[in-house]
Amino acid sequence: MAQSLPQVPGIRLASVPAQIKQWQRDDLLLIEIAEGASVAATFTQNAFCAAPVIVAKEHIAEGGVRALLINAGNANAATGEKGLDNARQCCAGVASALGIAPRQVLPFSTGVIGEHLPVHKILDAIPSAVAGLVADGWDSASKAIMTTDTRPKTASRKVHIAGEDIVITGIAKGAGMIQPNMATMLAYVATDAAVAQPLLDQLVKDAVGASFNRISVDGDTSTNDACVLIASGATGTLIDDGASEDFLRLKAAIEEVHIELAQAIVRDGEGATKFVTVQVNNAATSQEALAVAFEIGESPLVKTALYASDPNWGRLVMAVGNAGIENLDTSKISIFLDDIQIVENGGRADGYTEEAGQKVFAQADFTIVVDLQRGDACEHIWTCDFSHEYVTINAEYRT
Amino acid sequence: MAQSLPQVPGIRLASVPAQIKQWQRDDLLLIEIAEGASVAATFTQNAFCAAPVIVAKEHIAEGGVRALLINAGNANAATGEKGLDNARQCCAGVASALGIAPRQVLPFSTGVIGEHLPVHKILDAIPSAVAGLVADGWDSASKAIMTTDTRPKTASRKVHIAGEDIVITGIAKGAGMIQPNMATMLAYVATDAAVAQPLLDQLVKDAVGASFNRISVDGDTSTNDACVLIASGATGTLIDDGASEDFLRLKAAIEEVHIELAQAIVRDGEGATKFVTVQVNNAATSQEALAVAFEIGESPLVKTALYASDPNWGRLVMAVGNAGIENLDTSKISIFLDDIQIVENGGRADGYTEEAGQKVFAQADFTIVVDLQRGDACEHIWTCDFSHEYVTINAEYRT
Repeated sequence: MAQSLPQVPGIRLASVPAQIKQWQRDDLLLIEIAEGASVAATFTQNAFCAAPVIVAKEHIAEGGVRALLINAGNANAATGEKGLDNARQCCAGVASALGIAPRQVLPFSTGVIGEHLPVHKILDAIPSAVAGLVADGWDSASKAIMTTDTRPKTASRKVHIAGEDIVITGIAKGAGMIQPNMATMLAYVATDAAVAQPLLDQLVKDAVGASFNRISVDGDTSTNDACVLIASGATGTLIDDGASEDFLRLKAAIEEVHIELAQAIVRDGEGATKFVTVQVNNAATSQEALAVAFEIGESPLVKTALYASDPNWGRLVMAVGNAGIENLDTSKISIFLDDIQIVENGGRADGYTEEAGQKVFAQADFTIVVDLQRGDACEHIWTCDFSHEYVTINAEYRT
Repeated sequence: MAQSLPQVPGIRLASVPAQIKQWQRDDLLLIEIAEGASVAATFTQNAFCAAPVIVAKEHIAEGGVRALLINAGNANAATGEKGLDNARQCCAGVASALGIAPRQVLPFSTGVIGEHLPVHKILDAIPSAVAGLVADGWDSASKAIMTTDTRPKTASRKVHIAGEDIVITGIAKGAGMIQPNMATMLAYVATDAAVAQPLLDQLVKDAVGASFNRISVDGDTSTNDACVLIASGATGTLIDDGASEDFLRLKAAIEEVHIELAQAIVRDGEGATKFVTVQVNNAATSQEALAVAFEIGESPLVKTALYASDPNWGRLVMAVGNAGIENLDTSKISIFLDDIQIVENGGRADGYTEEAGQKVFAQADFTIVVDLQRGDACEHIWTCDFSHEYVTINAEYRT
């Protein structure tokens, strides 16, 4: 049996079947958070954000979050006023069972868009969830939130800070950004460290910027995306200095957990057969470097070439040229596949052979490096290929 | 036998085999333009623009264009200084054979990126091209410029202006924006009307804005795209008043030819099985309407749903929400499939049935209408679906 995920003092979890869809599996996750914890989150930028996202944003702004309720099978998105009311009813149900206020509960949903949440099923399942709360519920939790994921996504780190062992454990779900019945990437990361709220707010933004905002499966953004970072405060003294060694070490470990979870989403991308890092060096600005990296990582033509193990460098230069960079001097551009130079001065590199390029592209995991020779900014993203299986998965009828 | 394309007085064409690749077909097209004609063009916005695009831009800026030379099979892109020299040699070859200056020749190439043009093969073929120039060469020309196109793309109109019958005939090529061996969308439209250069310059921009800039096959832009509009001036008197009835009627007919050619590219999109118009109404600005239309038309998730004939309205609202519109009130949004309302006030429309939506999506040609209720701007684009065949075509090895 695989080793179970390390527990986080101050956090208890329960996964139960609420039969939100016609399936036999846990589909409702309750996370209970110790009193006094700090909680920070980031949410989807999609203007059509779902009802639970709207409610969660309202509630987290008031502070004092004590519970998260996550359901799979229904996104409660594009559901209007009734959707908001349904999300609030779920929060009230959890609040009543735990003896807290509804505003202390954050709701999350993932699944089909445009159908109303079966609130009664969720309310009926809450008592057994509350009764089943355990500290070692992380593994079950990672499975309860899955939709089209083919495997659970988990990560954990331990870090020794100020004489204490601190644990960071996280789970995530997501394969495509949207799928016929299912949607969304969700991530929940918790540590038992005590972190001041303003530091945690910044930390979740930085960690998401370094992880989930650097991945692309299909370039689409779900209506329900959310990432929550919890510092339960069960261990150690409050960290409130953002420049302190303690904070920086905790931050580094938390970012590692976020990055591992984000990479796991790409590796489990719908139909993906390859995991590819796109690294852009010597751009004028970070923004420019990311624009080039995403143009490559989201181009259907590059992605189908990745699938075919075809080192089609014409498509790579096409994508670089399409990134909207002003005054780009294409004659300075170099491109490498791992350590093989394929483009030099904007043209085919001397000494490059198709065989060498194909050898790199045939790997399941490799890096495309673009050097723009315009400045000092370097950025990277992670992407996957575009396969027949992607079309099959996404062309299936919603049934 | 199919009716041949109407000739345009003042224009002669010749298609010949230059064996730029190992194939048995015409792959070199020469278009000769009468002295005194006006010629205007638009070119790719890709920063990695190809050598012939750079040379054509230089030459057209000097005016007096008398010939176009177009080859298939090699894009002469990402080929550095040698690529520029090769393009200039081709122009010089045509100039010498026709007794004109090299700057009066515009070169165009479409095909594989990153390989040097076989200049000697092209130079060798020019004498037979010059000898073969004919007025009724349009049909052969439409085939000579094809790459992955499954059929030639042609359009023609006649319009009666100031007592004269004026003809407009155009040809285009393009299926995906880039393909393993092949690339690019090219279009050549000619009329025998006489149009002042400044009017023609504006006209080609407007016509391309209404046609080729409103289509999406895969969201990628080639390194070699070009559209050329020729007014040979062989018939009638000079039109130099942009507000005149004559000009507006000519413009309308020219735009119709452009739109028909652009739509033909979408209909022949790589692996496409559906032709879909995305119409966005009541946006605050045209820019905003186009942003929403392209977000829908380029979303892989929408395109796979189109392929599956699955009226997945969750993906449509997801795409609308992703278009980056500030302060979008999603509760006002309506979406129609032809005349079937699927989304009302941002949610599923009352009375909408899956059967009704599926019936529309099952058609080979239909319209998705989004109403934003923010203003008066209305815009439309044309797109196609994303099929298994698209992946197959683009994942094939370059051989």
